[in-house]
Amino acid sequence: MGPGPSDVDPRVLEAMARPTIGHLDPAFVALMEELKALLRSAFRTENPVTLPISAPGSAGMEACFVNLLEPGDEVVVCRNGVFGDRMRANAERVGATPILVDDAWGDPVDPNKLEDALRAHPGARTVAFVQAETSTGVLSDARTLAEIAHAHDALVVVDAVTSLGGTPLETDAWGLDAVYAGSQKCLSCPPGLAPLTFGPAAVERVRGRRSKPQSWFLDLNLLLGYWDGDGGRTYHHTAPVNALYGLHEALRLLDNEGIENAWARHARNHTLLRKGLERLGLPFVVREEARLPQLNAVTIPEGVDDVATRRRLLDEHDLEIGAGLGAYAGQVWRIGLMGYASAVRNVRHCLHALEAVLGERGGS
Amino acid sequence: MGPGPSDVDPRVLEAMARPTIGHLDPAFVALMEELKALLRSAFRTENPVTLPISAPGSAGMEACFVNLLEPGDEVVVCRNGVFGDRMRANAERVGATPILVDDAWGDPVDPNKLEDALRAHPGARTVAFVQAETSTGVLSDARTLAEIAHAHDALVVVDAVTSLGGTPLETDAWGLDAVYAGSQKCLSCPPGLAPLTFGPAAVERVRGRRSKPQSWFLDLNLLLGYWDGDGGRTYHHTAPVNALYGLHEALRLLDNEGIENAWARHARNHTLLRKGLERLGLPFVVREEARLPQLNAVTIPEGVDDVATRRRLLDEHDLEIGAGLGAYAGQVWRIGLMGYASAVRNVRHCLHALEAVLGERGGS
Repeated sequence: MGPGPSDVDPRVLEAMARPTIGHLDPAFVALMEELKALLRSAFRTENPVTLPISAPGSAGMEACFVNLLEPGDEVVVCRNGVFGDRMRANAERVGATPILVDDAWGDPVDPNKLEDALRAHPGARTVAFVQAETSTGVLSDARTLAEIAHAHDALVVVDAVTSLGGTPLETDAWGLDAVYAGSQKCLSCPPGLAPLTFGPAAVERVRGRRSKPQSWFLDLNLLLGYWDGDGGRTYHHTAPVNALYGLHEALRLLDNEGIENAWARHARNHTLLRKGLERLGLPFVVREEARLPQLNAVTIPEGVDDVATRRRLLDEHDLEIGAGLGAYAGQVWRIGLMGYASAVRNVRHCLHALEAVLGERGGS
Repeated sequence: MGPGPSDVDPRVLEAMARPTIGHLDPAFVALMEELKALLRSAFRTENPVTLPISAPGSAGMEACFVNLLEPGDEVVVCRNGVFGDRMRANAERVGATPILVDDAWGDPVDPNKLEDALRAHPGARTVAFVQAETSTGVLSDARTLAEIAHAHDALVVVDAVTSLGGTPLETDAWGLDAVYAGSQKCLSCPPGLAPLTFGPAAVERVRGRRSKPQSWFLDLNLLLGYWDGDGGRTYHHTAPVNALYGLHEALRLLDNEGIENAWARHARNHTLLRKGLERLGLPFVVREEARLPQLNAVTIPEGVDDVATRRRLLDEHDLEIGAGLGAYAGQVWRIGLMGYASAVRNVRHCLHALEAVLGERGGS
């Protein structure tokens, strides 16, 4: 119950143990087609360019930056946590100029600040933000941020690593141009894959590049030669066949449940956990209306030893919760309720374990 | 029995289906340490910087190029097949200048040409070559090529994707500076991971860079913050936990067998297959002394339909063999005997299936 990887459904684990077949085998190609359709459904998009990058979510982020930006481009990066800052780092590695829109950790991205930044930098053609900031548990308003970006003729790159499958994400309805996610959060798949979708404007941007993307491995045009169904498959890299079995199964389970039902389940279990955490005197970092149901960041009470407490939870209660990242190290715990792990049994187990370990402090 | 992914040992598949735990869990950190030690043993090295990249072999190649080269650097790239040409593409994406040493497809890299290239380009400080060219089945002499490079004060980058675990590879004894491999060939693990080792001179090169590597995801200094045991682990990306379970198990099985025994097994089964292929009138592409035992490239006989034959092998005999890549498309088949799949039962099955399908041509 940390910030991911989340617990994996046993059916997904079983799928990953199926015999490996060739990455160009007709049976595997059929699975790829199903997988793309299931991913489109999860991203709520009709984008033909929807595929999993063969590497973790961080590589999904890098895939967006290396394909959509060229050296010298200005890009507005909204930064309200670790992953916003990682976007800045990615922009710099591409040779682009990041224009930072900073909000305090725990606050959502402020749309007014984005508006101001785009007015001040009319040359910026890209806006990047994190919908669900895993370091703080805050939800930003992707729809509004995208509207502002589009009004200034900029595309949006959205980090949905922690949101996909757990919180409403509407790629098409909100006009999100490029969205990447991770397999190991609310999809409840092991880590290692980064679902990605590029809308028409993003694809047009990639096709019109002046230079080749600096990464061969993440070059979208080369990737599409393998993942695109039209006119046969061209070998690019060897796809991680068994990991893709797992993602396929995880998406099939999500589809069976219905993504709106999954969102509602995440919200319900969050409410249950929230009540318990409040009873235990663990205050949330994020104000109520901007909290992510799947990632609950709470302030560690005065006098409680962070590392020792998490170690006891792990050793005595078989429970992992997440440490604080970056500015929150030692200050915050992050409790995940993601995908398969967003279940009443887990909420109860977590609250009992926290009560047992914290209760021994003697009623502070 | 294609060019990889190879058949995966059921014990490796079982390992991959173990419950996912956190990438910072103490139990997982212990597994990481074992994995690094097992990788060192497979690479025959004492290099502390030995770890798996969380992406396929192509990303292992890119990790070497982005970390060891800077824009404007000259790099000698030996090209005798598809993967040598991919090295050229990687060098260009980094902004380096590739100096090409070309040999015909099916021939090993000619050490004399490398010597000439280094004399003609005294500024080149890096030499890149493929030890086992998967597109042709040819083995190049990594030891001699490294000696020549070192005599000219250049580091070597070695593609050992198809060689690791199947053919002698001596990272330390041959002085190889940077070597990358893939999980899905002679290690008989599913695709998705790229074992990598950097020797002291390569690490010194990385530490002395003037600019940051252009990839954040593949930045070795950042990766070491997570993989290096000294002073705790810093989160970089979320490691592909279950894929690493699989690699750990595959390396444990290799260690149990003994890598020299594994090399001998690959050689034995190659000899058995070779005799059968010759009986069937399927000539090898590569001359005898430079053949890879784990990848047998043979010329498709006149009048035989490549695609239809491979399709029949798959549909009627449950057997995948590899198509020709690049210049060899439609001309060549590539029969893999890699790792777990390098077994007498597979040699017999392959020969029987080929005989059944080709025999119907009516004794040409």
